[in-house]
Amino acid sequence: MEFDLISRHFKAPFANLVQSNGKVVLAGIGDDCAALQPSPGHVLFVSTDTLVENVHFFADDPAHLVGWKSLACNLSDLAACGASPLGFTLNLSLPKVDEIWLTGFSTGLLEGATRFNCPLVGGDTTSAGVNTVKTVSITVFGQAPSTHKGFHRAHAQSGDQLWVSGIPGLARLGLLLEYQRRGQLYQHCKPADLQAMDRVLAAMPDPLQRTALGALQQPVPRLGLGVGLRGLARACVDLSDGLGGDVAHIAQASGLSAILSISALMAIWRTCWPALDAREDAEELLDTLVAVTLQGGDDFELCWTAHPNNHDAIQSLKSSLHCVGEVASGEGVWLLQPGCKPTRLISQSYNHFAEPTR
Amino acid sequence: MEFDLISRHFKAPFANLVQSNGKVVLAGIGDDCAALQPSPGHVLFVSTDTLVENVHFFADDPAHLVGWKSLACNLSDLAACGASPLGFTLNLSLPKVDEIWLTGFSTGLLEGATRFNCPLVGGDTTSAGVNTVKTVSITVFGQAPSTHKGFHRAHAQSGDQLWVSGIPGLARLGLLLEYQRRGQLYQHCKPADLQAMDRVLAAMPDPLQRTALGALQQPVPRLGLGVGLRGLARACVDLSDGLGGDVAHIAQASGLSAILSISALMAIWRTCWPALDAREDAEELLDTLVAVTLQGGDDFELCWTAHPNNHDAIQSLKSSLHCVGEVASGEGVWLLQPGCKPTRLISQSYNHFAEPTR
Repeated sequence: MEFDLISRHFKAPFANLVQSNGKVVLAGIGDDCAALQPSPGHVLFVSTDTLVENVHFFADDPAHLVGWKSLACNLSDLAACGASPLGFTLNLSLPKVDEIWLTGFSTGLLEGATRFNCPLVGGDTTSAGVNTVKTVSITVFGQAPSTHKGFHRAHAQSGDQLWVSGIPGLARLGLLLEYQRRGQLYQHCKPADLQAMDRVLAAMPDPLQRTALGALQQPVPRLGLGVGLRGLARACVDLSDGLGGDVAHIAQASGLSAILSISALMAIWRTCWPALDAREDAEELLDTLVAVTLQGGDDFELCWTAHPNNHDAIQSLKSSLHCVGEVASGEGVWLLQPGCKPTRLISQSYNHFAEPTR
Repeated sequence: MEFDLISRHFKAPFANLVQSNGKVVLAGIGDDCAALQPSPGHVLFVSTDTLVENVHFFADDPAHLVGWKSLACNLSDLAACGASPLGFTLNLSLPKVDEIWLTGFSTGLLEGATRFNCPLVGGDTTSAGVNTVKTVSITVFGQAPSTHKGFHRAHAQSGDQLWVSGIPGLARLGLLLEYQRRGQLYQHCKPADLQAMDRVLAAMPDPLQRTALGALQQPVPRLGLGVGLRGLARACVDLSDGLGGDVAHIAQASGLSAILSISALMAIWRTCWPALDAREDAEELLDTLVAVTLQGGDDFELCWTAHPNNHDAIQSLKSSLHCVGEVASGEGVWLLQPGCKPTRLISQSYNHFAEPTR
C-alpha cells in the first residue's frame, strides 16, 4: 500500500515535471536513489527544512497551503544563495493515511513545484502512529555557476548597504491575525504588547489583511531576485527569524555591526498602507509595525548587503526592494532614528525550543 | 537556543570531517544552503529515509545506535546505486530537548559519518511538542562517474544471475530476538509461525544471536561493494523489504520473473550456523530461516543481477557474496527446490501502513 500511495499522490502527478526536466533528472522516484546531472561548471546547493503540525502550521490549515509552504520555505533558502532549483525530496510522516489531506497536500506541492520548476525526485512516507503529528521534511537541490559561490553570511563588509525585499513582518501580521481569529492572540503576545497589537490588527485595511494572510500561507520564494543579486550582493539570508535576528546573524558572522534605519522601515509600511498617515494614531501603529518587522519570522523575503556602488543596479532588479541600513565596524544591531543616537537592539529571534507552539 | 544546540551537538563535532572534505563541501552548516562541488564528469545521487520512534526504532534503543542506523540505512541506498558519499543533511524532530539523547545520537551519527567519510552539511532541529515521537530524516548525496548511470531496477535481463551479499534475514532475526526479550514476539508473528520462530530463536547459538542483533542495530552499508559492482551488475537494490519483496521489485520493473534457489538460501544459513546440520530439527529450522530471509526487512545488504560471464569477477570482489537464483522470462518470484517444479512465492514485503508498530 505504501508504494501505491506514493505512486498515486506523488509519482504520477509529478511525472510530467520530472520528464520536462529530463536532462537534469536522470532517475527519479522508484529507484534507491534519484540521479541528477547538475550543469558542468556549477556548484550544488542543498537546503532542508521541516514543517511540523502545531508548530509551523495549524492542524486545520488547508492541506494544499501546507504543501505549497513546505516547498516554498525550502526554495527560499536556495534564493538566499542565488541558486536555481534542480529538484527536491520529501519525507512525510503522518499519523495515518488520510487520502483527502494527501490529495490537497500533493496539489499544493505540485503547484509550487511547477511554478518554480523544481521536480520531486524522491522521498518516503511513514505512518508514525495515531498519537503523532504530521511532519514534512523537504530537501531542495539547486545550482549556480562555480564563479558565484553563494552569498556567505560572513561576507558583509563595513560600508555595505543593508537591503530587504518586500514587507518584512507581513507574514507575522498574518499569523497574529490567525491567532486573533482563533482567540489565541493573548497566548502569543507579551501582555505588555497585547493592546498595541490588537489595535494594529483592528486598524489594518481589509486588502492588507488578505496580503498578510497570503504572506503567511503562500509565501513566494524570491528565486529570481536571488539569481539577479549574483555579483551584486555580498552577504544574503532569507528572513525566517525576523529582520532583527537575521541581520544579527550577518553582523555576527561578519564580525561587524548593522545599523537599521527606523524611518526606512516605517516607509515600507507606509507604502503598503497608504491611509496610515491620515490616522491620529499613525505614530503608535508604526512603532508596533516596526517591532513586528524586527521580531516577526517566516517572511521568506531576502535580506542582503551590497557595496553602495551597486545601489542603482539592485534598485533596477525589481520593485519593492528597500535599502534599510548599513554595515559598520563594531558589533550588534543598532536602530537609528532621525535626530537621535543609535540605540542597540536587544533582539530575540524566533526560538523553536522556547516559543509556545500553535 | 536552537543555534546553540545545533552547534554543540552537530556543527562542532562534525567540523573536522567537513574540513577534511573541503574540496567537496564549499559551505556547510551555518548558511541558508550547503554548497557542494561534485567531481567533474560525475552524476549526483540522492536518497532520503525517515526513521520514526516506535516504528523504525524502539523508544529505549541506545541513542548512538539510532544515530548510526539513521545514516547507515540512507548510505545503503547510495551503495545500491554504486555511488560514493559526498555528504548528508539531517532533520531532527524531537518532543523536547533531551541533551543526553542528543549527545548519544550525535556520537553514533559521527561514528558512521567518519567511517564512511560522509560529512554533515546541513539540517534543522524542531521541537514538535511533548506528545510526539522522535523523527529522524536524513538525505544523503553521493556521486558516480557519468559513465556509470547507477543500477536501474528495470535493467535486469533474462538469463542474469541473482546475487545477494551477507545473510539476508539476519537483521529480522535480531528484531525478533528483541521482540522476544520484550515479551512481544506473539504480537509480531502470525500465530501459525510463532512456535517455529520460538524454536529458531531458542536454538540460535549465542554468537549468531549477537551477530543478528548487530545486523539490526548497527547495519553496515555496502558502499565498497556497490562501487565494485559498477560495470558488473545490471539491476541492484538494497534489501529493505525482505529478499522476496525486493526481488519482486526487480522482476516487476524489468518485466521478467525471478527464480530463487531454496538450497542456495539454506547454504547461506549453514555457513553462519555451522552446527545447524548436526541438529535433529535442522530441516525444520532451515525452513523457518528461509521464510525469514524471504519476508524479513531492513537487512541493508545488496541484491543484484548480473550476466553469468561476470560470475567470477563478482565472486572475487568480497567474501560472503552468494549467487542465489536467476532471472527468466515470465513474471513473479518463484522458489526452486531440488527435484521439484518451481512454486510461486506470494510475497509480502514489509508494509509501513499495515504492520503493527513497535
